[in-house]
Amino acid sequence: MAEEQCTAIVAYEVTAEDREKFLNAWKKADDYLKEQPGYINSSLHEAASANPDFRFVNVGCWASADDFRNATQSSGFREASGSLEAYPIHAAAYEVVEI
Amino acid sequence: MAEEQCTAIVAYEVTAEDREKFLNAWKKADDYLKEQPGYINSSLHEAASANPDFRFVNVGCWASADDFRNATQSSGFREASGSLEAYPIHAAAYEVVEI
Repeated sequence: MAEEQCTAIVAYEVTAEDREKFLNAWKKADDYLKEQPGYINSSLHEAASANPDFRFVNVGCWASADDFRNATQSSGFREASGSLEAYPIHAAAYEVVEI
Repeated sequence: MAEEQCTAIVAYEVTAEDREKFLNAWKKADDYLKEQPGYINSSLHEAASANPDFRFVNVGCWASADDFRNATQSSGFREASGSLEAYPIHAAAYEVVEI
């Protein structure tokens, strides 16, 4: 059986003016996550339209939902992601539905 | 140069009680989209946690953002997706950020 993989989807509310500031903050947080157990990859998406509900959505792959939760609940992550707190986020671990 | 591809990310607010009803409605809409020009694939994700902001997030790949917009603004789609209107959605076309 294939190892269970977890997709973390995180949507960020960011204004057009804050784009560069957000990208710097996100990169710092992602650099921290890259070093944590179970991190596989991140794919940051930017909206192509003018006034999206979520300018950025990250689709991240982790070896398991526990790895994702452990990494993002660590004190190291709170420090690395401090600058992201300015942006309302909607985050959860997801699994692909077989339909 | 590779052809530009567009990722459509659509987040749905769905209660636990409405899960099955939503899945039926989503499948009907997706079956319509599958037949439209530029559709590449859909990957419906379901939250693994109890009270997510968005129980379902679809990550769809289209040949272009125009194809996605044309398909979802068609009268055929309005008909096929009528049962989805009960669920608040957040939809946009996205491009991956090189960071």
